[in-house]
Amino acid sequence: MPRIDGRSPSSLRPLTITIGNMMYAEGSCQIEFGNTKVICTASVEERVPPHLRNSGTGWVTAEYSMLPRSCRQRTQRDSSRNSPNGRSLEIQRLIGRSLRSVVNLDLLGERTITIDCDVIQADGGTRTASISGGFIALAQALSVMKKRKMLKHPVLIDQVAAISVGIVGGTDMLDLCYDEDSTAQVDMNVIMTAKNKIVEVQGTAEGLPFSRERLNSLLDLAQGGIADIVEAQNNALKEALNS
Amino acid sequence: MPRIDGRSPSSLRPLTITIGNMMYAEGSCQIEFGNTKVICTASVEERVPPHLRNSGTGWVTAEYSMLPRSCRQRTQRDSSRNSPNGRSLEIQRLIGRSLRSVVNLDLLGERTITIDCDVIQADGGTRTASISGGFIALAQALSVMKKRKMLKHPVLIDQVAAISVGIVGGTDMLDLCYDEDSTAQVDMNVIMTAKNKIVEVQGTAEGLPFSRERLNSLLDLAQGGIADIVEAQNNALKEALNS
Amino acid sequence: MPRIDGRSPSSLRPLTITIGNMMYAEGSCQIEFGNTKVICTASVEERVPPHLRNSGTGWVTAEYSMLPRSCRQRTQRDSSRNSPNGRSLEIQRLIGRSLRSVVNLDLLGERTITIDCDVIQADGGTRTASISGGFIALAQALSVMKKRKMLKHPVLIDQVAAISVGIVGGTDMLDLCYDEDSTAQVDMNVIMTAKNKIVEVQGTAEGLPFSRERLNSLLDLAQGGIADIVEAQNNALKEALNS
Amino acid sequence: MPRIDGRSPSSLRPLTITIGNMMYAEGSCQIEFGNTKVICTASVEERVPPHLRNSGTGWVTAEYSMLPRSCRQRTQRDSSRNSPNGRSLEIQRLIGRSLRSVVNLDLLGERTITIDCDVIQADGGTRTASISGGFIALAQALSVMKKRKMLKHPVLIDQVAAISVGIVGGTDMLDLCYDEDSTAQVDMNVIMTAKNKIVEVQGTAEGLPFSRERLNSLLDLAQGGIADIVEAQNNALKEALNS
Amino acid sequence: MPRIDGRSPSSLRPLTITIGNMMYAEGSCQIEFGNTKVICTASVEERVPPHLRNSGTGWVTAEYSMLPRSCRQRTQRDSSRNSPNGRSLEIQRLIGRSLRSVVNLDLLGERTITIDCDVIQADGGTRTASISGGFIALAQALSVMKKRKMLKHPVLIDQVAAISVGIVGGTDMLDLCYDEDSTAQVDMNVIMTAKNKIVEVQGTAEGLPFSRERLNSLLDLAQGGIADIVEAQNNALKEALNS
Amino acid sequence: MPRIDGRSPSSLRPLTITIGNMMYAEGSCQIEFGNTKVICTASVEERVPPHLRNSGTGWVTAEYSMLPRSCRQRTQRDSSRNSPNGRSLEIQRLIGRSLRSVVNLDLLGERTITIDCDVIQADGGTRTASISGGFIALAQALSVMKKRKMLKHPVLIDQVAAISVGIVGGTDMLDLCYDEDSTAQVDMNVIMTAKNKIVEVQGTAEGLPFSRERLNSLLDLAQGGIADIVEAQNNALKEALNS
Repeated sequence: MPRIDGRSPSSLRPLTITIGNMMYAEGSCQIEFGNTKVICTASVEERVPPHLRNSGTGWVTAEYSMLPRSCRQRTQRDSSRNSPNGRSLEIQRLIGRSLRSVVNLDLLGERTITIDCDVIQADGGTRTASISGGFIALAQALSVMKKRKMLKHPVLIDQVAAISVGIVGGTDMLDLCYDEDSTAQVDMNVIMTAKNKIVEVQGTAEGLPFSRERLNSLLDLAQGGIADIVEAQNNALKEALNS
Repeated sequence: MPRIDGRSPSSLRPLTITIGNMMYAEGSCQIEFGNTKVICTASVEERVPPHLRNSGTGWVTAEYSMLPRSCRQRTQRDSSRNSPNGRSLEIQRLIGRSLRSVVNLDLLGERTITIDCDVIQADGGTRTASISGGFIALAQALSVMKKRKMLKHPVLIDQVAAISVGIVGGTDMLDLCYDEDSTAQVDMNVIMTAKNKIVEVQGTAEGLPFSRERLNSLLDLAQGGIADIVEAQNNALKEALNS
Repeated sequence: MPRIDGRSPSSLRPLTITIGNMMYAEGSCQIEFGNTKVICTASVEERVPPHLRNSGTGWVTAEYSMLPRSCRQRTQRDSSRNSPNGRSLEIQRLIGRSLRSVVNLDLLGERTITIDCDVIQADGGTRTASISGGFIALAQALSVMKKRKMLKHPVLIDQVAAISVGIVGGTDMLDLCYDEDSTAQVDMNVIMTAKNKIVEVQGTAEGLPFSRERLNSLLDLAQGGIADIVEAQNNALKEALNS
Repeated sequence: MPRIDGRSPSSLRPLTITIGNMMYAEGSCQIEFGNTKVICTASVEERVPPHLRNSGTGWVTAEYSMLPRSCRQRTQRDSSRNSPNGRSLEIQRLIGRSLRSVVNLDLLGERTITIDCDVIQADGGTRTASISGGFIALAQALSVMKKRKMLKHPVLIDQVAAISVGIVGGTDMLDLCYDEDSTAQVDMNVIMTAKNKIVEVQGTAEGLPFSRERLNSLLDLAQGGIADIVEAQNNALKEALNS
Repeated sequence: MPRIDGRSPSSLRPLTITIGNMMYAEGSCQIEFGNTKVICTASVEERVPPHLRNSGTGWVTAEYSMLPRSCRQRTQRDSSRNSPNGRSLEIQRLIGRSLRSVVNLDLLGERTITIDCDVIQADGGTRTASISGGFIALAQALSVMKKRKMLKHPVLIDQVAAISVGIVGGTDMLDLCYDEDSTAQVDMNVIMTAKNKIVEVQGTAEGLPFSRERLNSLLDLAQGGIADIVEAQNNALKEALNS
Repeated sequence: MPRIDGRSPSSLRPLTITIGNMMYAEGSCQIEFGNTKVICTASVEERVPPHLRNSGTGWVTAEYSMLPRSCRQRTQRDSSRNSPNGRSLEIQRLIGRSLRSVVNLDLLGERTITIDCDVIQADGGTRTASISGGFIALAQALSVMKKRKMLKHPVLIDQVAAISVGIVGGTDMLDLCYDEDSTAQVDMNVIMTAKNKIVEVQGTAEGLPFSRERLNSLLDLAQGGIADIVEAQNNALKEALNS
């Protein structure tokens, strides 16, 4: 079955990373998977949440939001809703957890790095794009902190990236766009390190519970996509650190 | 390594189900995994969310909350916080999604069944207990609706249960209690049908990214626990339906 | 006129007290007046509200909430309403005030004891059950604090209990259930000490303003009920303190 | 014991009623008990709360608020607080209940009359002043509705007024000012009809539980004050209706 | 074209200032422009917003609110709305900015003066009345502070007043009442010092963009009105300071 | 006095307009004045606010928000604040009012066009950039509606643009950047039509009240800048409509 945009089932959409696009942020990038576009910034602040005060330990957290017209239909801003936006809260908790998994918080010192992921345009895969782009912003911010002598030791202990996979029309597919995602029978987000270790896996049957075998074939597919993203992250960071 | 309470790594905690404990609800149970105790109720209402009006289709949704002193430290009520409780919202979205996966919403008619999961006492595994208990409340409510001639066809298309697994001190373990959970290197919630199909899997590395092999051994462990819970659900429901 | 459940006008509903039912709380009980069931917990925290800091004085406060399906119709959780729940706020202010009336706050030290009253099932009289049960949780917590050498002197200066009375179908009645309460012409809550002194009295004419004589006959009725509750409180506490 | 302002224990403070002071409201007055000043307005709207739609029945409700600098210390506005103002909610529920007790809601038709009580200056007794003044605004609005042929039958079934009494320094006193109220051992609000029937009684022991005898002597005192207020209400209304 | 109330286009409405009307506030007045009536109070507090702590500098801020029935139609209180009241926030920011323009905040010391402007009755021009009256409350409070030896040097550096002008039915008019304002083609608020310097000017074309010439003729009109208000402010303050 | 970036006092910053940058919106552009970058979208919805239902009349409204790290210091998102963001509400009211001044709402039909202005990067002048860019998004959306036969008659009655002027270090300057704005003695926003008519003027003295003459020289400066922006708007729209 050919895909909507002619890709093979195991191909990523065109991936573009523009690093350092936000002039005030310590780290930033605009990451694009096809029509999905996210601005990620890393902001360093000399404060930690109350439960970490005087612990010597730092914190990495994330916030996620969509521009009202990033979607086909305009959506209400969070600030004008009556009830909290459960989806946004769930996604930003996932982003924060994923990024913290590759950071040594003790070596960060009593500082908070906030990763803001603002979706400019949404065509599926915004949470995985946020994690992959958020890692770049984080790495750039840590590099800036190192230059400013704020860090004595390397804080990153690994590299993390994320991608969606799913079963669409019976076929396993990588990096679902919105039209594929909305008809998927199974939808899975996989977050892995550069060394193929799982950081987080979230798979959901949308109407079709799936077998253990199928889970494995989807993970194979994700692993391939993660490798490509890791390479693109490295290229973007190399360029930024040399400039 | 012996576990805190002497169980083997692959044993559930003592599982108790008291069905029909809430006199007003169409379906209800108190489900207990050891010291974790959750009251689950199913409330049937003749209304649907705005986007389903005049669609002929029903809805199943869930709400999750903890009594302030269900925990070691008293926690603030959601209603007195300034910011929404992201964890609760994420959990109730998961419960709702899991239960909807075994319901034919078209055959439910334009009605909403709300599953309330109120944690009376928390010692780890409250979200999986909520799903396993929520299924019982839902099944009882559907049985009541059938007796009241509100349903023409069976609405349940499968049976669902949930359990946590994790890696604690290097060992794979089933049904983590709070002390195990808080030191786990990997924490995973598995939601499966009676036929061993995956409805949802959420695995998180807490500091230790894990291999594909380890993911598989954890899923083996979960599958065994799910089978035991499914049997307990069936026993409870049989008793209630016969009375 | 016989009552709905066959009781005499001056009888309490069956009263059950299960003390120490919540494993983490310093004090706790489940108190049941017929079908009305409330879980009361007492939580001790080493902090006081801002206006008492550095005063050497402690604080006792209460929170009151109902499970969504404790009622015939499911009610919205406070956390998902747009407007504050005036009834809950009024009730928890009453509970706090009543319990503080029997506590020497100076001898408590700079600590807060929070009494959480969570209504599991509601069939009238939830606020008076909360006060009567709240006193038990409070007394148990103070006893625990004494054993932990946190208190030098007895903090309780009296014992408090509460009951509803009302005029239903022209007859004075004690301990109204929901069906009686919703048709009552006069509804009164009486909070008294073990020595028959009034701590708080709140009487409301629902459509039928009443005479001073009738007020007195209702207070006579309440006084009898209070004596029975005081005895039940003492029995429950004796058992707990001996164990 | 002489009182702060030289009054006898059984005297009201100087009572002033300015009726019709708000040009847009259907009914209004400014009522003053000494330094306590409240503006009460009655607003008639052709709508009822959802639960009364198509019932043919009307509604009377109240809102209560204090100007930020009506008090000795400036208080935050409700709209800029994080948590709801429990005291205000409790008071406005009491005002609404008291006024509804003298209204035949069926004869009002499907309309809402909202009584706004805005405290301009507070020196004790603001809730009872709000009820006594709220009745005047309500009566004037009903009179205006009658002139506009909106009502076929008299809607008021009685007349209501309210006053505070208390035990201060061991003495029973009527109409407590702030300094008396803040040191009172017992504080009671009494709401009565013109015929000496009780609409609502709320008595609270502030540290000193009190006997049934003392309750009766306080009610005697209140009854005398109510008679004076009823006369002042009648004089104000007579003047307004004749003009 | 004669005006609704017979005034000439360049006349103010009858202007009344009652200074010191609020017994607890450090400064206060009720200011009336015809039927528009605003209570302004100045409250002095020994604290500053977080960003000014330890700066030695003080702050002047304002809050603005309308009684629900100050208008023809009853409006909801801010505290019972779902969304913030943008108009009120905008007005109180304007009042605060205007008053700060005539205060030397360094000489005030680390204190906050809060100007509360509560509209009792609204017939157009409430924001300009709030500024003109707010200045009087502020000046009285500063005079009180001086008497209490809280200030070493004069804090006021100028005197400020405000008035509305507009184009109604093609004619330039001063001090618009509500009926004029609601049909105005151009609506402008002008805030000036006693020396005819502009502090703030906000002109809005309601449907009819206007020329630079017309802007100038409107400013001429405003300048005349400001001079009259400045004189009235001075008379009120003189009287208060002499008493 | 040379300006920070070498511009003359009467020069705009480099102005870039990228029209149609958002794939889902009916109208969109990214507008940049130097380092200030705003994404403006126009969303057409077939609904109107309650007060316009069944009036045949449409509505144009605006929302304004800043990305958290669009500024030098990260700012909290509106959705995570306790209090509403007064500045944002004030700005979005200004944008909406300015755009409505050039729209014939009767000819729009019962539809709402929402202009979202999201500031990606802020270096002064974000509200005026939002108006100038908002007009482009609005015009493009109306052009799309015309192509889709949704409009019978031209809806735009004029063209609107906006710019800031101010007095910095004693000199009148056009289009202030953040560093200039934060030290300006006078700050003014001018919104004008293509024909040099004033739609809105808001001038504020920051510490230095200014004369009528100075107001006029600032308006001269603004008029020149508006003419340049109008030309750039026309070029961008011409290109878009031809493609």
